[in-house]
Amino acid sequence: MIQPQSVGVVVPQRAHFAEPLQLRSGGTLPEYELVYETYGELNADRSNAVLVCHALSGSHHVAGHYADAPNNSGWWDNLVGPGKPLDTRKFFVIGVNNLGGCHGSTGPISINPATGQPWGADFPFVTVEDWVAAQARLADRLGIARFAAIVGGSLGGMQALSWSLQYPERVANAVVIASAPKLTAQNIAFNEVARQAILSDPEFHGGHYYAHGVVPTRGLKLARMVGHITYLSDDAMGDKFGRSLRHGKAIYSYDVEFEIESYLRYQGDKFAGFFDANTYLLATKALDYFDPAFEHGGNLPAALARATADFLVVSFSTDWRFSPARSREIVYALLHNQRNVSYAEIESDAGHDSFLLDEAQYHALLTAYFDRIKV
Amino acid sequence: MIQPQSVGVVVPQRAHFAEPLQLRSGGTLPEYELVYETYGELNADRSNAVLVCHALSGSHHVAGHYADAPNNSGWWDNLVGPGKPLDTRKFFVIGVNNLGGCHGSTGPISINPATGQPWGADFPFVTVEDWVAAQARLADRLGIARFAAIVGGSLGGMQALSWSLQYPERVANAVVIASAPKLTAQNIAFNEVARQAILSDPEFHGGHYYAHGVVPTRGLKLARMVGHITYLSDDAMGDKFGRSLRHGKAIYSYDVEFEIESYLRYQGDKFAGFFDANTYLLATKALDYFDPAFEHGGNLPAALARATADFLVVSFSTDWRFSPARSREIVYALLHNQRNVSYAEIESDAGHDSFLLDEAQYHALLTAYFDRIKV
Repeated sequence: MIQPQSVGVVVPQRAHFAEPLQLRSGGTLPEYELVYETYGELNADRSNAVLVCHALSGSHHVAGHYADAPNNSGWWDNLVGPGKPLDTRKFFVIGVNNLGGCHGSTGPISINPATGQPWGADFPFVTVEDWVAAQARLADRLGIARFAAIVGGSLGGMQALSWSLQYPERVANAVVIASAPKLTAQNIAFNEVARQAILSDPEFHGGHYYAHGVVPTRGLKLARMVGHITYLSDDAMGDKFGRSLRHGKAIYSYDVEFEIESYLRYQGDKFAGFFDANTYLLATKALDYFDPAFEHGGNLPAALARATADFLVVSFSTDWRFSPARSREIVYALLHNQRNVSYAEIESDAGHDSFLLDEAQYHALLTAYFDRIKV
Repeated sequence: MIQPQSVGVVVPQRAHFAEPLQLRSGGTLPEYELVYETYGELNADRSNAVLVCHALSGSHHVAGHYADAPNNSGWWDNLVGPGKPLDTRKFFVIGVNNLGGCHGSTGPISINPATGQPWGADFPFVTVEDWVAAQARLADRLGIARFAAIVGGSLGGMQALSWSLQYPERVANAVVIASAPKLTAQNIAFNEVARQAILSDPEFHGGHYYAHGVVPTRGLKLARMVGHITYLSDDAMGDKFGRSLRHGKAIYSYDVEFEIESYLRYQGDKFAGFFDANTYLLATKALDYFDPAFEHGGNLPAALARATADFLVVSFSTDWRFSPARSREIVYALLHNQRNVSYAEIESDAGHDSFLLDEAQYHALLTAYFDRIKV
């Protein structure tokens, strides 16, 4: 045992793919780049690679920090590093920014070679399956035939699940956290509110706002605010903010009265300051479309019959965005196919966001699971 | 027993109040009008009056229809009428549009006598307590010293509860349906998203959009969309819409893919076409501010000690906006004070909206409760 450490300074890398990528939407990306980071060393057998898939607003920056930004730690820095649950002394861990993203991989802010202008709203729709196909090409490039594990939370968990179906022979373990086999009507409804907020912002300009030198910040802020409500449990919001009044009493104003208002506005403003609206739209659509059982008439066990990986499925008790019941659907469908599947429902009051947090039982579980993986 | 009937053609009435109304916010309304409807006849003892309080987007139009709009039935027409649970052969039922409303009572679209222009954003903040005070003056005008019952759902239930505290001697029965003794942080958060959608709409013009000949329809639409999600249960949305695709398959577009998107857009557009944005802002703030226990250090039993009415408290099993647990808080606080309180948690899959619907057990309960009231 060592004290858990940071992976330290990391440097993003880029890979260019000249071969067109056929997308599920029918469109094609003529060429593309993926930006990625790696932590740890690929072993001689090339058997210790772990792919970490990011969620709606994540990126390839999973762990460590950049030399010029020591406080900008990766989004799963608490999980990935020497002595951490996903131990980089044992594993070679990869984070990739997905296609359509806004953190360096080809996306709406990239130049469309056909026009010489940013893709904007013309960037093709990308699905979870497309992301996985692009990640598989990166794996080829890195000489990784088979992953020790593919891991993700939320939309990232959908990618891990999809990997096990698209490339079953390339996934030894799939770790699917706080996720679901498809969105419910309510999930789609929240995404739709977020999209309408962006699409109806006069500064969206049909998705070609770059050319106007503006950003649909109002829409993006609203989208993030509504998202944030669904990331936290009712109880967590109650414990953290309750009805705390900024001024100790009502001031009868549309300025901040309750601390929860301040929190949401802050989160919305922060997000609108760095995230691309077109990417947000694409990512919510990727969430909506994900439904591996669709082609099997809604039969999830039939859809998951292709999977051969061992599975760890994790849910959180107060997650109402992707409730434990949604994880259990995955578990039952895998058990129906007699797959090896471990399932844990972690008691946590933090709602969907729990998958990003330091909950001790959750981290102990991941430590034990990754420990068990032979590389 | 008769077959339940409509109250038929109704005609709204107006009452002007020249005496200023002191508001909790510290402001004053110099004068105001209330628009209201009545159904049934006030008996000789003036002992059979029932006040129905409306929720966020309701109005005084509780039952019946107007001569020139036979299909525009009142919002609780299924509940109020001859042979209906709130039987107008027995009771004299009153519906009032609240101050700050947009259906005829003095509100932001009314002329501010000080400027000769619409009040707009200068209309003072109004609280549940202010509404109740204004309703009490209307009762005085109508010669009603004491109500047989005061009834309301959601924000209307808060008014019924507040009546029992502000004018305990004037309320024989308080019927509080699908309500709560105060909002949670999550409730406030949803309201705040709705408000920011309106406030940030460029056509809001600081709340003085009337002068610009525009309406902040985009913001109001988003506000209603997010509201609607909270009115329905996850299950009800799933049963009604699920993942039904408009075109049978994904079309990869921001046009309607899933039927739930169409429903939300339709509800949003419809609402934005007739409801006033300033009224919506005021009503969400009235919701946020309501907290009778605040002045008692958060002690709800202490706050409710003033109430002398008999209570019926009703909640719905799948209501996650004001869950049954919130109703139980009211019940426990009343029992602590040894009040007469009946409580029913109705099994319904329709979420918060259940209070407006025809659920048989719910209507049977109300029938029985109103039957029992001596007038």
